[in-house]
Amino acid sequence: MVVVASLRLPSLTSLFSASSRSSHRAPAALFRRRHSCRRQPFLAAAKFSAQSAASSPPETTEELAVNQKKSSKTNQDRVITPRSQDFNAWYLDVIANAELADYGPVRGTMVIRPYGYAIWEAIQDYLNVKFKETGHSNMYFPQFIPYSFIEKEASHVEGFSPELAVVTIGGGKELEEKLVVRPTSETIVNHMFTQWIHSYRDLPLLINQWANVTRWEMRTKPFVRTLEFLWQEGHTAHATPEEAEEEAMKMIDVYTKFAYEEAAIPVVVGRKSREETFAGAVRTYTIEAMMGDRKALQAGTSHNLGQNFSRAFDTQFMDENGQRQHIWQTSWAVSTRFVGGIIMTHGDDAGLMLPPKLAPVQVVIVPIWKKDDEKVGVLNAASSVKEVLHSAGVKVKLDDSDTRTPGWKFNFWEMKGVPIRIEIGPRDVASGSVVISRRDVPGKQGKVFGISMEPSTLVGYVKDKLDEIQASLLAKATSFRDRYILVLVSSTEQLCDLPSD
Amino acid sequence: MVVVASLRLPSLTSLFSASSRSSHRAPAALFRRRHSCRRQPFLAAAKFSAQSAASSPPETTEELAVNQKKSSKTNQDRVITPRSQDFNAWYLDVIANAELADYGPVRGTMVIRPYGYAIWEAIQDYLNVKFKETGHSNMYFPQFIPYSFIEKEASHVEGFSPELAVVTIGGGKELEEKLVVRPTSETIVNHMFTQWIHSYRDLPLLINQWANVTRWEMRTKPFVRTLEFLWQEGHTAHATPEEAEEEAMKMIDVYTKFAYEEAAIPVVVGRKSREETFAGAVRTYTIEAMMGDRKALQAGTSHNLGQNFSRAFDTQFMDENGQRQHIWQTSWAVSTRFVGGIIMTHGDDAGLMLPPKLAPVQVVIVPIWKKDDEKVGVLNAASSVKEVLHSAGVKVKLDDSDTRTPGWKFNFWEMKGVPIRIEIGPRDVASGSVVISRRDVPGKQGKVFGISMEPSTLVGYVKDKLDEIQASLLAKATSFRDRYILVLVSSTEQLCDLPSD
Repeated sequence: MVVVASLRLPSLTSLFSASSRSSHRAPAALFRRRHSCRRQPFLAAAKFSAQSAASSPPETTEELAVNQKKSSKTNQDRVITPRSQDFNAWYLDVIANAELADYGPVRGTMVIRPYGYAIWEAIQDYLNVKFKETGHSNMYFPQFIPYSFIEKEASHVEGFSPELAVVTIGGGKELEEKLVVRPTSETIVNHMFTQWIHSYRDLPLLINQWANVTRWEMRTKPFVRTLEFLWQEGHTAHATPEEAEEEAMKMIDVYTKFAYEEAAIPVVVGRKSREETFAGAVRTYTIEAMMGDRKALQAGTSHNLGQNFSRAFDTQFMDENGQRQHIWQTSWAVSTRFVGGIIMTHGDDAGLMLPPKLAPVQVVIVPIWKKDDEKVGVLNAASSVKEVLHSAGVKVKLDDSDTRTPGWKFNFWEMKGVPIRIEIGPRDVASGSVVISRRDVPGKQGKVFGISMEPSTLVGYVKDKLDEIQASLLAKATSFRDRYILVLVSSTEQLCDLPSD
Repeated sequence: MVVVASLRLPSLTSLFSASSRSSHRAPAALFRRRHSCRRQPFLAAAKFSAQSAASSPPETTEELAVNQKKSSKTNQDRVITPRSQDFNAWYLDVIANAELADYGPVRGTMVIRPYGYAIWEAIQDYLNVKFKETGHSNMYFPQFIPYSFIEKEASHVEGFSPELAVVTIGGGKELEEKLVVRPTSETIVNHMFTQWIHSYRDLPLLINQWANVTRWEMRTKPFVRTLEFLWQEGHTAHATPEEAEEEAMKMIDVYTKFAYEEAAIPVVVGRKSREETFAGAVRTYTIEAMMGDRKALQAGTSHNLGQNFSRAFDTQFMDENGQRQHIWQTSWAVSTRFVGGIIMTHGDDAGLMLPPKLAPVQVVIVPIWKKDDEKVGVLNAASSVKEVLHSAGVKVKLDDSDTRTPGWKFNFWEMKGVPIRIEIGPRDVASGSVVISRRDVPGKQGKVFGISMEPSTLVGYVKDKLDEIQASLLAKATSFRDRYILVLVSSTEQLCDLPSD
């Protein structure tokens, strides 16, 4: 029996259980600062790490190799395994066919291709603005960390040492001290904070970095869990525990808004169990998303680090009363895993389905002609529609290649998840109108004829449709989530009363 | 005797010779596709690498350690060594005092602090737009490269093997194949290109990545040469050698425009000697800048790789005639070194001097009051001036702290290189005007009184001044460069006739 609690979220995995079909809704706010139940968490958590909590078992290395071969083949034949048949195969097929990513030559590494990277850039653009609005500055820490740093914080080394990549040779010589390729930067950040922070006047110190990180994962899956991944990691230092807690909550809130409003992913916000708390943190807040296979994906975390690292690195400041105190800290991260979350939340048998706000291409124009004398008129009209939308700030692509049929193009851009398709044929040119199809509503139902090419009409219509699609994806994902959420307890007392196996 | 040629640029180091005061001007265009002189380059080049050609001898590790101590001290006393007295000490003092960067815990690594990182972000913002305008897409390649890849291209391994960082342990186990932490990505890029490129229809393939790279340099210097640095690396594949050459030239042109128009650095464009050509390239184009000590700094390079890597990795395509051919390639890069170039081109004894287009803070407002009853009026006026400028898109900061005197703030923001300072005191409030000082014109000469606070007047005035300062920095750097350039030969024949020592 799988069991769930609303106040501790190790159990989100089971919350999204495939077998459960309860109509209970998840509580709107799952926060609870303390819980009085003293029993150990009753659900085994996978492992410690900000990046590790995806619950679906990823494919093995062997499967990766098989898929790698498949991926190079499917460029031509473009066959996607049905989602219902094999969710994991579907996921890998979509990634290969939509050219989101490819496997790197080293086991477990990933090459992020332009279309996949553009989604990551859209995520970056949004979050970067929000981080700055909330007072954070970007900076950059070196990725090589002396091995001794990692060992300073007891639970940190316990959590991370099994997954470290270690540089032992530099410039042709064996190094005196081995260097860890950063799995996360708390240790090196604290080493520097100790030099920069002297007085309460230096606080709060609010920084962020966009960087690559390395974790020697044994089971990998593109975007979801790779040996090297891209992320942002925020690191902050405060004069009081209250400020640190407020910061940790503020940032999980930024992530939550991002998930809902940009990615159209109705995440559940909550706090990790003791076992899933970040290695070195006092409390870890998390946003967890339900994927199309009804499994949970950890999509972002925010940690209240308390004084764990400041004690280990002796990061102190002089407070207003002239007393030396250890600083209070937070760290928080979102990674390229989020791209995997978008794929697995919205995609269907036809392929990717992208939320308009993060789509690299929001509108694709497919011109249609049969006879040569139609071609010029159609292409001219298509070009001017493109120009009109582009000037209005819509991300638009005109697919005017003549080596592919319109039907092929329809399938291709559907598979790439483009929210809106505009078709323009000779009759449309004659009537000064276009045909508009929605990616999220299949077939005729999603198709509207006779939308005027007149710029203000067309721009208004397209922008409204994009908003509608954005809202519709969120609504659909929310109802899916709520259909498969099972809430078994609603109080600490009930939780403590549950059998522990 | 130091000797120079206008058609091959190994000699830029000597071109910017400290002892020479020739009034000859550098030729506007230094390009020459071929040269017939068969003699070996007569000037010893430092070493092979896109990142390696700064000619000034950097400090040793011991000096680094000394400076590290100094830097933590100077936070309080803020003493900058005069530039004329010791250029290198001045450079390091400016970096420490303006809080651009700090030393990382591992020898030769650097922490880029928010103010320094913001300059890099401004560089990224400009170049990223230009790369996309010229048809390139961003993507991301893993940083771990199998050692065997590096060995495939003969001159590449020769150039890079002495400076590699090598991962030998992953997940607690000795690895079967050692992994190189990327020093540059040509090898892994070609490995992937071989899978993606099949036909001429797949060409040109134009990509770029923003990434960190590692080179085990023995002598390091913040920004100029660090063990790990940030850069962008463009990689392109073409169907013909002409297209590759055109691309290589186009990108050095993008860099040149950037240097002149954004960084106000009048670089000299040219081609590297055989010895300084990138390890694996056929031709390397470079932009070289003259620093304040009259030494050259390589500020960006663009390589025509010919078929060197495509032969090594067997990257082939089917051409329009059905023939299999190896692709023609380019790569090009600009790194965080450019920040060092900006410091060393424009800075003076008072500290940093930033070109307005790349300055994180373009205008600083310093409110001045003596009596408490003046404070509110002055701060209100300062805030509304800030708001007016901010709304007009000016990067403005109001320094309203009351723990520092106005005089201290003047020095501080001058040292940080902020182009314009606005002073507002009680009399200015009364007259509805402000005092404006230019960073690039010291003392009273750079100070103008009585500029109206009226929004449209003030915004217009400030924007004009920013443009004026931008142009003035370029003009000053250009006349400095031309004063110290020595042109000894103006034809290939003359070059061949020169004594070789």
